[in-house]
Amino acid sequence: MTQTNIKADWIAVDWGTSNMRAWAMSASGSVLAEGSSDQGMGKLDRDGFEPALLAVVGDWLDGPTTVVACGMVGSRQGWIEAPYAKTPCATLPDGLVQAPTKHPDLTVQVIPGIMQRDPADVMRGEETQISGFLARNKNWDGVICLPGTHTKWVHVSADEVVSFQTFMTGELFHVIATQTVLRHSVAAEGWDDAAFTNGMETAMARPERLAARLFSLRAEGLLHELKGDTARAQLSGLLIGAELAGAKPYWLGQQIAVIGDSNLSKLYVAALATQHVPATQVNATAVTLAGLAKAYRRLKG
Amino acid sequence: MTQTNIKADWIAVDWGTSNMRAWAMSASGSVLAEGSSDQGMGKLDRDGFEPALLAVVGDWLDGPTTVVACGMVGSRQGWIEAPYAKTPCATLPDGLVQAPTKHPDLTVQVIPGIMQRDPADVMRGEETQISGFLARNKNWDGVICLPGTHTKWVHVSADEVVSFQTFMTGELFHVIATQTVLRHSVAAEGWDDAAFTNGMETAMARPERLAARLFSLRAEGLLHELKGDTARAQLSGLLIGAELAGAKPYWLGQQIAVIGDSNLSKLYVAALATQHVPATQVNATAVTLAGLAKAYRRLKG
Repeated sequence: MTQTNIKADWIAVDWGTSNMRAWAMSASGSVLAEGSSDQGMGKLDRDGFEPALLAVVGDWLDGPTTVVACGMVGSRQGWIEAPYAKTPCATLPDGLVQAPTKHPDLTVQVIPGIMQRDPADVMRGEETQISGFLARNKNWDGVICLPGTHTKWVHVSADEVVSFQTFMTGELFHVIATQTVLRHSVAAEGWDDAAFTNGMETAMARPERLAARLFSLRAEGLLHELKGDTARAQLSGLLIGAELAGAKPYWLGQQIAVIGDSNLSKLYVAALATQHVPATQVNATAVTLAGLAKAYRRLKG
Repeated sequence: MTQTNIKADWIAVDWGTSNMRAWAMSASGSVLAEGSSDQGMGKLDRDGFEPALLAVVGDWLDGPTTVVACGMVGSRQGWIEAPYAKTPCATLPDGLVQAPTKHPDLTVQVIPGIMQRDPADVMRGEETQISGFLARNKNWDGVICLPGTHTKWVHVSADEVVSFQTFMTGELFHVIATQTVLRHSVAAEGWDDAAFTNGMETAMARPERLAARLFSLRAEGLLHELKGDTARAQLSGLLIGAELAGAKPYWLGQQIAVIGDSNLSKLYVAALATQHVPATQVNATAVTLAGLAKAYRRLKG
């Protein structure tokens, strides 16, 4: 580790399946430094979390320091299991769980996820983003869409998560584009806005034909020389269109906030716009930090 | 190669992406011997096909011998490209293509696949099974369902393929069960009939919610200890149910024949029965051989 002059009052951590991000925070809640690592929960066993954390934040420690972490770090396969709160519940559930540590100055508090009994559903990490969004938008009621590997649609009211539904859209896109026969037809990069919109509208109109439309992409590649970037955008449109058809009870007649990767969020905002649903794109990092800061303040309050 | 006494009058070959099967045939069309290999088209470059074939059928050769082959062996990445016939067309298209061979006694004839311009679709191998089915069921009109990696629904009339549609159902099952987060919830084996029917009916009723129902299987595993064999059957039911919803224009009010793997075909017959659609399960190997024999007779006729 290289020496730096940054010393954190506390540390914010967003620890997912694939990656970890950390921020050195001042007492007033501003970011002093940030770091990241590819040591996601999926790559670590229980003893691996503390060294992986210290590799990123070790330089920021200067005496006893609290780390507040959200995400899959609190799952059963994580550092320590932070049991789910049950809907309906506060967007930032009580019951942070302290992870076991060896470093004398380190206290790590993990934010619980939220579960819904029926239909069965779970989230870890998104509750912190939602909580941060509400901290910055007091008294906001509506539906929050969090696109990603497992896209979530969350109905929030009176600072509570009322209900939510997860769609495996992002993960389906990944495995279909890379692990099926469509890998021969779908480019790894590139885009075509018209093809996205066409796929989206096709799937919204006839979501039951999805598995047939997928094979059509392959056949169009063979017979009509469909371009790889066009196929990529159309595949994305088909899957997001099918999701919008399924999530209609969530977005119809609601105000929508979209929190996630910037490019992916833009697609959802554009897709919702074709349905005359206004949606606001929200900076994901900002609300993640706002949620972690809210949890820290509550700990210290 | 071990010496045998079997000498083929001709040889029938079904050569797919993953595997190859071959039969030593008598002049009268009965099977004298059979063999198989895991050297599917996907594992071979152009020069690899002849040695892979001879490894299985070499012992059966006794002077000049004709091999009739169907399937992906005739694709652009196969032994030789056998250009597609275009719908509407005879179930067994004209225009067999001779593959280049070095062995002096070997003549290999490859059956073309069938393409449909709009919606774009392709088949290779199924046309031979359909042709064999019609050879055994004269004047049969209706819809043939060929379940598999890429399930096909084919409208046949007057011994012609009128139209068809391919659903990526089998391949989606495989990648979702093994390459996504559901791999933690879906068992590699095992079954539960009630869960299959439940998944099938759920997806037929609300096919647009497929990506959400998939994640529910994971959440039910985490929250309600859903069993792995139950999850497996329900995943299969969800995907086949969504397919049946999409293929309804094909099966509604039609007589259906189902040609494919025996266990998978049973699922389709059972699923169609819940929709009051009678479907006949057909022995896939028998109709494949009947189709290859029809092509051989035409060559020699």
